[in-house]
Amino acid sequence: MRRQEFSVQEEMELNQFLSENTFGFLGTVDDEGRPRVTPLNFVYDQGFFYFHGSRVGEKMSHMRINEQVSFTVADEYALIPSYFSNAAMACPATSYFKSVMVSGTAELVLDLSEKGRIFTLFMQKLQPEGGYDPIDPTDPRYNSRLRGVAVMKIIPEHQSAKFKFGQNLSKAAIDNVISGLELRGNSRDQETIAQMKKYCPHMP
Amino acid sequence: MRRQEFSVQEEMELNQFLSENTFGFLGTVDDEGRPRVTPLNFVYDQGFFYFHGSRVGEKMSHMRINEQVSFTVADEYALIPSYFSNAAMACPATSYFKSVMVSGTAELVLDLSEKGRIFTLFMQKLQPEGGYDPIDPTDPRYNSRLRGVAVMKIIPEHQSAKFKFGQNLSKAAIDNVISGLELRGNSRDQETIAQMKKYCPHMP
Repeated sequence: MRRQEFSVQEEMELNQFLSENTFGFLGTVDDEGRPRVTPLNFVYDQGFFYFHGSRVGEKMSHMRINEQVSFTVADEYALIPSYFSNAAMACPATSYFKSVMVSGTAELVLDLSEKGRIFTLFMQKLQPEGGYDPIDPTDPRYNSRLRGVAVMKIIPEHQSAKFKFGQNLSKAAIDNVISGLELRGNSRDQETIAQMKKYCPHMP
Repeated sequence: MRRQEFSVQEEMELNQFLSENTFGFLGTVDDEGRPRVTPLNFVYDQGFFYFHGSRVGEKMSHMRINEQVSFTVADEYALIPSYFSNAAMACPATSYFKSVMVSGTAELVLDLSEKGRIFTLFMQKLQPEGGYDPIDPTDPRYNSRLRGVAVMKIIPEHQSAKFKFGQNLSKAAIDNVISGLELRGNSRDQETIAQMKKYCPHMP
């Protein structure tokens, strides 16, 4: 299912997905119209995506030329072999995944206290156990570093999500895939079954 | 380290990285210059990337407008907390990862026997255990399906790789990070230590 508008329940699932995933892929365009895809750590907060980087560098120069950006986060849960649903044909082979894709504009965050707040969000996400002094922009140890690093904010204009867990399959095919996953028992197969039970329309 | 040219040894490591990773991120540009990043399963074969999809759809229509594409594969090994190397400051917090980024042009693969060969590569990568009838374009069960699906080939013009495992750190800091990973023992921490030992210049 690819969805453009979300219910409150779906918004909560998106928030959870974006808090569990640490890596996203930024799409930018250079002055000759060539795309670039850069992997980045990110935080998502109240509808905006943030990332940081060197103040020089190719992705930053792309964004000075063209503020239009795209940002995609995806997580592949399981490869689904064809024989889970068909003994002869290769065609049903697929993968189940969640992805969130936004497009919008990027702007530099210049305000130091806002930069401090965003780095605090990064640390809360990526190092929730703590173990560092609070990021206070008036602390001289942090002040110069906050000035020296670039922080970008993505303001989404369009947002869509695709959670692909066999929603297009018949009840019989879903049962076969679940049996196959039960038997295989890879590390994320139980998690995948739980997602199928949540999203497949034939599930009770 | 970001590298643009590769030795034979590095080419082998790239091949291995691209065979182990099943998901990549395709960057395309629409007619108004807006980027899009699409997650996809892919195969890499003799210098070219291949993926498949519906013959209609947004990424295919982008590529008809602008054949310039970018394709990035990344794998995050470990989040490295700041306290592995500094007891006070948050700044050293980072992640270690491998990424491969190419830019080039995309073209449709129309020849049916070539499409059959590419789908066979997909199956060998994503379902190496077999369990399907060979994808023979003269087999009427496969023939119409091969005609009905779009297969794209990316011809890279530029290719770069970044394997980030603390190469910029001092010998003392590397030792601290390795001790921290040993103690933490997350599922990929041993694998991360092995990569550090392989790529860090201070390692014996």
